[in-house]
Amino acid sequence: MLNETIRTLMSHRSIRKYEDESLPDEDIEKIVKAGRQAAFVSQMYSVIMEREKDDIPFGAPVMFTICVDIYKLEKMMEKRDWDLITNDLTLLLFGIQDASYMAQNMVIAAESMGLGTCYLGSPVRTARNLKEKYDLPDKVFPLVQLVVGYPAEDPPTRPRYPLDFVLFEDEYPEFSEKKIEKAMEEMDEGYLEEDYYRKLDAKISLKGDSSDEYTYEDYSWTEHISRKWGQWYDDPEKQKEILEACGFDLERGD
Amino acid sequence: MLNETIRTLMSHRSIRKYEDESLPDEDIEKIVKAGRQAAFVSQMYSVIMEREKDDIPFGAPVMFTICVDIYKLEKMMEKRDWDLITNDLTLLLFGIQDASYMAQNMVIAAESMGLGTCYLGSPVRTARNLKEKYDLPDKVFPLVQLVVGYPAEDPPTRPRYPLDFVLFEDEYPEFSEKKIEKAMEEMDEGYLEEDYYRKLDAKISLKGDSSDEYTYEDYSWTEHISRKWGQWYDDPEKQKEILEACGFDLERGD
Repeated sequence: MLNETIRTLMSHRSIRKYEDESLPDEDIEKIVKAGRQAAFVSQMYSVIMEREKDDIPFGAPVMFTICVDIYKLEKMMEKRDWDLITNDLTLLLFGIQDASYMAQNMVIAAESMGLGTCYLGSPVRTARNLKEKYDLPDKVFPLVQLVVGYPAEDPPTRPRYPLDFVLFEDEYPEFSEKKIEKAMEEMDEGYLEEDYYRKLDAKISLKGDSSDEYTYEDYSWTEHISRKWGQWYDDPEKQKEILEACGFDLERGD
Repeated sequence: MLNETIRTLMSHRSIRKYEDESLPDEDIEKIVKAGRQAAFVSQMYSVIMEREKDDIPFGAPVMFTICVDIYKLEKMMEKRDWDLITNDLTLLLFGIQDASYMAQNMVIAAESMGLGTCYLGSPVRTARNLKEKYDLPDKVFPLVQLVVGYPAEDPPTRPRYPLDFVLFEDEYPEFSEKKIEKAMEEMDEGYLEEDYYRKLDAKISLKGDSSDEYTYEDYSWTEHISRKWGQWYDDPEKQKEILEACGFDLERGD
C-alpha cells in the first residue's frame, strides 16, 4: 500500500553505530544535490563536510554541518549595490527553514540508499567552537550536524505522539487531561519497551541535591524531556551571545 | 541510476495551480504520518489542517499550517511537576527544526504520491492573524503553511546554486569574486530562461522614488532577493512583537 519513498520515510530511525567503510564521492554528491533541491526561501544555507575523521561521532565516515548562511546572501546583494536591511531575527526564522528543509532532504536521500543517519543538535549551543573550527565567516550559523554511513545496528523506529495529538482540523483543540495523559503514556511505554535510554545510557542527571528515584526501569521520554527543558539553557542572554559570536545580532536595526 | 525516492527529491518544484479535486482522508493521513516520523528533538510541533476552503491559495484542496508547539511540551511537563525553564530563543532554535523536518517529510510524502505542494512562508510575519484564526494557545508559533493537491500545471524545477557554492570540505572557503559572480549568473540565467517572475508576476516594487529600470526581460533571482532582504522587515522589534503575541518572549528568564 505504501510506495517506496513513504516506506523510507516511515522507517526512519537514527543510527548510532556505523561500519568502518567510506562513502563514495558520488553518493555524497547525490545526497547533497538532493538536499539542495528542497524548496527554499532564498537558499540561505551552506554545508561543511568532514570525512574519515576521528572526531566524527559513532564511527561514521561522513559528517555534514548544515549552516544558515546569510553571508553569501549579503555578498551577492553587495554586488548589486544593495544593503541587507532585514533584521537578523526574521532572517533566522526563514534561514533555519531553508537549512532544515535541505538537511531533511539529505536524510531522506541517504536513507533511500540504505545508509543510516543521525542528527546532532549540539551546534545550537556549541556554534562558537564550530565557527572557529570551520573558519565560518560572520552571519553563518551552524544549525545542526548530520552523520551518515553504513549502519552497523538495526534499532526499531521510535514511538511518536498519537496522530490526534498532532493533527487538528480548523482550530487548535482544548486538550482533555485524558488526552494529554494518553499521549504521554504512549510515548513512555514505547520508549520503555525499546529500553531506549538504557541502551544509550542517556539519563539526564538531576541538578542540585535531589536524589534520583528513577532507574532505567521507569525513566522514559516525558521524564527525559522534562529534565532537559526543565534544567537546561535557562538564560536567554547566553543563547544571544552564541548567535552574536556568529554575527547575528537580534537588536540590529533597532 | 537514481532510486525512486531520490528521483522524487530531485524533481521537486512548487505547484501554484491545482485541480478541483479533494484529497482522500487516507492520503492526508499518510502525509501527516510520514511527517511525524521525521527525526525530532522533542516533537515540538502541531499541524492545523483546512480543507475545501475558499481561502486556500491556488485552489488547493488542503492547507496545512505547521506550528512550533511548546504548549504541549509545557502541559506534559506540568503533569510531571516540572517547570519549563529553557529560554524561548533556544526553544525556537530547536523547535523550528522539529517543525521543519516534519514539514519537509510531508512534502516528500505528498510528492511521492504524485501530488503537488507549495510552501507559504508568510506565517513568520502574519502569525498573529493565524493565532486568532486557529485559536492557537500561547507558545504555539505558526511557522509555515503547506498547500497540497493534484497539480494542474507542470512547471520545471528551479535553478540552484552550483554545488561548489553550497558544499565545502573541512572549512568555509574564501570566495573569489568570480565564484560569487558565477553562482549569481547561474541563478539569474536559469530563472530568466524559465521566465519565472513574469509568469508569477512577482516583481517586488522599489520603495521610494527610485524609478525601476528592470523589466521581466532582466529582473531575475539576485535582483529579487536583493529587493526582498534590502527593503523589507528592517525592524527587529516588529518581529519580536509577532513572537510575543504568540507567547514567545525572547527576554524571559533574563
